[in-house]
Amino acid sequence: MEALKERIKQEGKNLGDGILKVDGFINHQVDPVLMDACGKEFSRRFRDIGATKILTAEISGIAPAITTGFHMALPVVYARKTKPITMPDQVFLTLTPSHTKGRTVELIVSPEYLAGGEKILIIDDFLASGATILGLVRLAQTAGASIVGIGALIEKNFEGGRDALAHLGVPVESLAVVSKMEGDEIFFASD
Amino acid sequence: MEALKERIKQEGKNLGDGILKVDGFINHQVDPVLMDACGKEFSRRFRDIGATKILTAEISGIAPAITTGFHMALPVVYARKTKPITMPDQVFLTLTPSHTKGRTVELIVSPEYLAGGEKILIIDDFLASGATILGLVRLAQTAGASIVGIGALIEKNFEGGRDALAHLGVPVESLAVVSKMEGDEIFFASD
Repeated sequence: MEALKERIKQEGKNLGDGILKVDGFINHQVDPVLMDACGKEFSRRFRDIGATKILTAEISGIAPAITTGFHMALPVVYARKTKPITMPDQVFLTLTPSHTKGRTVELIVSPEYLAGGEKILIIDDFLASGATILGLVRLAQTAGASIVGIGALIEKNFEGGRDALAHLGVPVESLAVVSKMEGDEIFFASD
Repeated sequence: MEALKERIKQEGKNLGDGILKVDGFINHQVDPVLMDACGKEFSRRFRDIGATKILTAEISGIAPAITTGFHMALPVVYARKTKPITMPDQVFLTLTPSHTKGRTVELIVSPEYLAGGEKILIIDDFLASGATILGLVRLAQTAGASIVGIGALIEKNFEGGRDALAHLGVPVESLAVVSKMEGDEIFFASD
């Protein structure tokens, strides 16, 4: 998606170690107009998969998940990383390594909002190693729900995430595919 | 705002201790269509205040802040509760008590996205004691920005938040004002 790639080119920063900083429009400051356009594009790409719910992980997945949910008129559930007191004692919980946090984090969903039979579209900000998304897949499958699609704003195609998700046999869509970062330059895979 | 109050009446749960659970459409599962309507309503109420940026706190403020930002075409910054590795070492940081977490949390904003001279509209999910919003006010003021408005989806008017914000002299708008919770019943202040 050109608008997103253009923005990454202009404002994205290669911090080294595979970290792409997009804090100016996705991860700390958010451009809601760009996020809306991304949500619209996801809704176009996933319009035929029969999703009944969108699942994401707090925190940075929330913005694109909300705009996708708006355009598809689907509820959005975001997995929590700490259990709030409003959540029941029995929850779905899985552990996943976080690259940007440098430690393992919990992903927690209440059984109230993830039921057997749901058809889940996962939306997140990044597809890198796929670890967070595989955590969401485990949560959904534990609930008896099935995964019908996976979307990421930005894929780093040199970290193996797409291969890690291949066994699911569902469409995996990224709006910008970064193939290489060298110094100040960010390269995209041709679409 | 009728649609929000109706939803709270139908699905909100009084957990006691002043806690109103709205996890089915705001705090864990989100209804993006309702959030969009709330954002549209905030944008109507705040159209004349001259805001240049929206500030909120992760996590539950993000959805209404994004939809408000979309309708006002303003960038949204969400204060982080943990410092990610993409953030510079020098940050704006304040501490605030969290009622639902039962402990003090940090609110952190990068100086990259909060500059002197900005006119800040604060949007959050709840206005209860006002503690979180006052934390955001301190961050903005430390940065040299000024507060021009405050909006909350739900105000609990028996916890003193509105009084705590009065000294700021800016419009404070809530889309649903809960005046009392007794057993299974939630009462609203007349608008």
